Order: sequence, then C-alpha cells, then structure tokens
Amino acid sequence: MRLADTSVWQMSPGPDADVVVSSRVRLARNIAGFPFVNRATVPQRNEIVRVVQHARFPTEWAGGIMWVNLQQATQLDRTLLVERHLVSKQFASADAPRAVAISSDESLSVMVNEEDHLRMQVLLPGSRLADCFTGVARLDETLEQSLDFAYAQRWGYLTACPTNVGCGIRFSVMLHLPGLKLTGDIDKVRAAATDLHLAVRGFYGEHSEAIGDFYQVSNQITLGRSEQDIHEMFARIVVPQLIDYERTARSVLLQQNPMLVDDRVQRALAVLRASRLLAVDEAMKLLSRVRLGVCLGRISDVDLATVNRLFLQIQPAHLRVLTQTTETDGDLKETRSTLVRRALGAR
Amino acid sequence: MRLADTSVWQMSPGPDADVVVSSRVRLARNIAGFPFVNRATVPQRNEIVRVVQHARFPTEWAGGIMWVNLQQATQLDRTLLVERHLVSKQFASADAPRAVAISSDESLSVMVNEEDHLRMQVLLPGSRLADCFTGVARLDETLEQSLDFAYAQRWGYLTACPTNVGCGIRFSVMLHLPGLKLTGDIDKVRAAATDLHLAVRGFYGEHSEAIGDFYQVSNQITLGRSEQDIHEMFARIVVPQLIDYERTARSVLLQQNPMLVDDRVQRALAVLRASRLLAVDEAMKLLSRVRLGVCLGRISDVDLATVNRLFLQIQPAHLRVLTQTTETDGDLKETRSTLVRRALGAR
Repeated sequence: MRLADTSVWQMSPGPDADVVVSSRVRLARNIAGFPFVNRATVPQRNEIVRVVQHARFPTEWAGGIMWVNLQQATQLDRTLLVERHLVSKQFASADAPRAVAISSDESLSVMVNEEDHLRMQVLLPGSRLADCFTGVARLDETLEQSLDFAYAQRWGYLTACPTNVGCGIRFSVMLHLPGLKLTGDIDKVRAAATDLHLAVRGFYGEHSEAIGDFYQVSNQITLGRSEQDIHEMFARIVVPQLIDYERTARSVLLQQNPMLVDDRVQRALAVLRASRLLAVDEAMKLLSRVRLGVCLGRISDVDLATVNRLFLQIQPAHLRVLTQTTETDGDLKETRSTLVRRALGAR
Repeated sequence: MRLADTSVWQMSPGPDADVVVSSRVRLARNIAGFPFVNRATVPQRNEIVRVVQHARFPTEWAGGIMWVNLQQATQLDRTLLVERHLVSKQFASADAPRAVAISSDESLSVMVNEEDHLRMQVLLPGSRLADCFTGVARLDETLEQSLDFAYAQRWGYLTACPTNVGCGIRFSVMLHLPGLKLTGDIDKVRAAATDLHLAVRGFYGEHSEAIGDFYQVSNQITLGRSEQDIHEMFARIVVPQLIDYERTARSVLLQQNPMLVDDRVQRALAVLRASRLLAVDEAMKLLSRVRLGVCLGRISDVDLATVNRLFLQIQPAHLRVLTQTTETDGDLKETRSTLVRRALGAR
C-alpha cells in the first residue's frame, strides 16, 4: 500500500483553521438484494466488495482510485489508514472480507462492508462542509447509476443502524477547542451539543478520548430530515456557533490572563523542543497547546501547517513508516522526540 | 536588618558539592540559674538575651556580629532568616523575647531563646563537617568563659529536650538525592538511616517536606556519647556512605538509561527557561533536576553556583527583597519566572 505524502493533515489548513481542523461528510448506503453486513455470509461479503469495485466512480476520481483489501493489508497499513481517518478503528480490526477505495488526494474514501455495505466520505481541511457535501453527493449519484441502493418509500435509504436511516448522511467537523477547555466551558458546550442531538466524540471517533482538546462533532439523527436541512442546520448554524464560542473563550483568556496563556504555550513548545522521550498522548497534548499559541500569534517561529503535520506524523504507524525506525521497545518515544525536535527547529 | 549578599547558598559550592549542599554543626546550651525557655518569664527571657549579648565572642567573629531582635524584626526579615537557614521556622514565628547573632559571613549564628537558651550553629557549603565542628567548639569554649552553662556531672550539658542532653551536639548535612529518588532507593536509604538513629528531614528541617529532593540528615541522640565519637561516626562513616549511595544511583541511571536522565534534565531546564509563571515548589523541583544535570555533566551551559544561588533567590522573602517587586498577588509567580529565565540565560 502506498499512501499519498499529503493528507488533509498536511494540506494547507483551510478556512477557519484556527478552530476547525477538518470537515467530513459521510453517506451510508446498502445494496439491494444483499443482507446487511452483520448478517451476510463470507461469500456474500466478497460479492459485495466485487460489485462495488466494478461500479462506476465519478470521472474526476476514477483514474486515481486505490483499492486496499483490508484482509490482505498488513497491521501497519491498517493502522496507517486509521491514523489518517480514512477508515474506522472497527473496520481496520475486523476480520471479514472488506475493502476501502481511496482517491489519490485522499479526500474521498469508500469503506465497503463496514457497518453498511458502503460508507462514502469526503474529508477536507478546515471548515469546508459545503464542498464535502457537494463531493459526496456527486459520488452518491454516480455510484447509484451502476449500483441498486436499498431504499424504502416510507423510510428512505435503509441502513444497518436506525440512527442512519433516511438520508443516511452524517456531517462532522474535527474541532480544536483548547480555549473552552482552559476556561472550563467545554462541559457546558458538550451539554448544549447533546441537547441539539449532536454527537461529541474524541480524536478517533466513536469510543475515543478527546486527546489534545480535539473533538469530533456530528449530527446524530437523519430519519425524517432532508440532507439539505441537515446541512443548513449543521454547517450554517451549529459549526459557526461553536467556532464563535471557542474564539470568544480564547480572547477572554488573552484579555484576562495573557501571562497564563503564554506560560502554557511557551512551556509546551519548550518541552517539545527539549524532550528526549515523548509518548504519543503527551505529544498530542503539548502540540495542542502549541497549536493554540500559533493561532493566537503568541508563537511566531512555528507555522500551523507544521503543527498539523506533526499531529499525524507522531502517530505510531506513521512514525514507523516515516523514520524506518529500528527502535524495538514498541512505544517509539525516542524516535518521536527526535522527529518533533527537528520539525520544531530545536537547537 | 541587612544580610550579606553571600550566604552558603551563594558561596563556592565546596567539597562533594554534587551531593552535599551544606554542612552544619549545632550545639544546645543553657545558662545556669535560669529556667528553660518554655518555663521562663518574659523578664527572664529578656535577661537571657541581655546576658548573651554581653558575652565574649571569639575575636575573629566579635567585630562582625550582627544582632537581630526577632520581636522587632519585620515579617519579611524573619522569613529571610528562615530561608537562609539561620533560624528555625518555630523561632521566627514565636512571640516571646528572642534574638539571633549572625556573623558577617553568615557561617555562624546563635539563636537565643529558641528551645534552649543558646543554639549555636556553624553552617558551611559542601561537605565540611570537620570545619563546622572546629568552629562551633571554638565558639562554645569562648562563650563558656563568660557564661555559666548548665551542666550536671551525671548527664552532661542540660537541655530542654532529652534528645539533646549530654554533649548537646547535632551534626547535619543537607543532601541532594535526586538519583536515589529516581531509582526508587530513597525509601530504603531512609529506613536504613532510621535504624542508625539518624533523623531525615525536609528542606526546612523538622516537619518540612523533602522539596526538590533535598534531605537534611542528622544525628538524633547525644546522651552518653562524646562529641568526638558522634563526629567520627557521622562525618567519617555515615555521610561518605550516603554520598556513595547517591553517586552509585546516578551512575547506574546514566549507564542503564541515559536517555531518561537527559529527558528529565533537559525538560526541566527548558521549562525554567520558558515559563511565565512559576510557583516556588515547582521551581525547586525543576531546579533540582537541573542541578542533577549540571553535576552529571549533561547540562554544560549552566553552572552549579548559579543553580545553588537560585534555590535561595526564588524563596518568597528573598525574591521580594531582590526584585523590589510590586506584584501584589502574594505568590510572586511572574516575578520568580522572570528572575529564573534571566539567570538561566533564556533567549
């Protein structure tokens, strides 16, 4: 498997990058005539993969699509895909026939035989939900020309989990909310999001922790609403509001206690530049503070693209591939520290 | 009150300075014809102060003796004396008539009306118990020419607390034991010290914590032993053994895990150079690691004298006097951080 050197984490950061790391729209679809994945036999699952691989993709992507067979992929490759947010953790570690299609720029991916037969996503850096929506809609329409998606007049598109029935769409953004964390308002925001039927998850989606103050926020219910309505509500109201909360928290912090902010961000940068051993969780936490410092203009000799890239490169599989490390202890602390020190221009 | 610019913390570090910060010998004496301090009336305590102030001091110190009346001293001055280890915390905060005599180089001090009528000490940097012993013995002999010390044939010199009866002498060293702390052997050493009837105390003596891996080790029992025996046992056997334990721990650490040592010491130095707010306990802890790095040759651009001096200067009273700070919040975190950053040559 050969992944692109670029990914959304390495591209230019995009609109509203101070708060929104990436945007994603995902559609769930199933093919008529097959049981849902959890009821399908191995031959049926193999057939589903075969059918999707022969479907027609939009011309702009068709040439650059790479298919990865997850059953044949190495553990390292599977972990790489998770770290890039191209497949879910569950999908990577399952053991039934399954595959993923990835466009050459990695903005588009289609998991086959995850919870649904098809999970298509478009992932872009910064706040670009409208572009993601356009992209995934175009993919859906094109695939539907050669695939017969399960659909019921009464419910809409059928999905394995009821929360996806209807239009089967999920909008999500990966937000960086260190300001709300520092002011202590993050819990209020989480509670408000729950009231609005939004899901707030950690860095690697479902069942993961909010490492480094990253939160994945997404709409929860799709039944009875049109894709357009969900897009309007989520992209035009919810996300701008969350961005506003975070920016307000940051400016309150800077006004009320600039010394505290500088203390946090300068210490974090100094430790990253001085450490000799660096665990991944600690690195995420420190990079999160540096990211805040860069976005607030309190750190001027590091740029946002470098910090974003490091969030990806410090992950274990990326680190192994990138450094061809011979470190054997499995936790890569020394290699990670060396990489980070160099990237941040330590003396 | 005007203290010298130098103190043992600011002098050249002395012998075995990698482990032994300072040495101290203290003698407890009481004047015949007066009750012990805790039974003495205010007029009697005043009289004791007067009598000692008129006693003859050794000629080499007599000219340079400064007397501080603790009842008249400001809170700031009393705290300064504690931070310099010239008086005990209890003595500084009591409210009965009491005074302290301090030589101009601060190596000698005599507390009058602490637990005993006289508590004389000689304090020197590094491992210099023999010099301290010579100094305090000379002081004792000279004072005895003009003062009548309470003495009983059967017990020796009488003292308020039975642990001091006999020769009333206490030898102590302030040890820096970060190696034993890191290897986890510090508890074994503490247990062994207790078996040998040694007291192991924290940075400010009795009832204080071992901040920054500093431990004050002293002999506990004086009854039935000669000063010379205690000196032999403590200075020639116990202290060299403790120094050896600590040095062994450090070299084991360096051999087995140099990366861990570098990680600890470089992070500590980086945080001290980058922080904007610095609490005293955290500063002690970080300076302790930097001290270890300097002693092991892992940090080359900071010298031991600077680190030793900072341990004193970051204490609240010293910091206030030194910086003439207007910081009002009482914890001086910003002022402390600025002082430390400058002293350590932060960019």
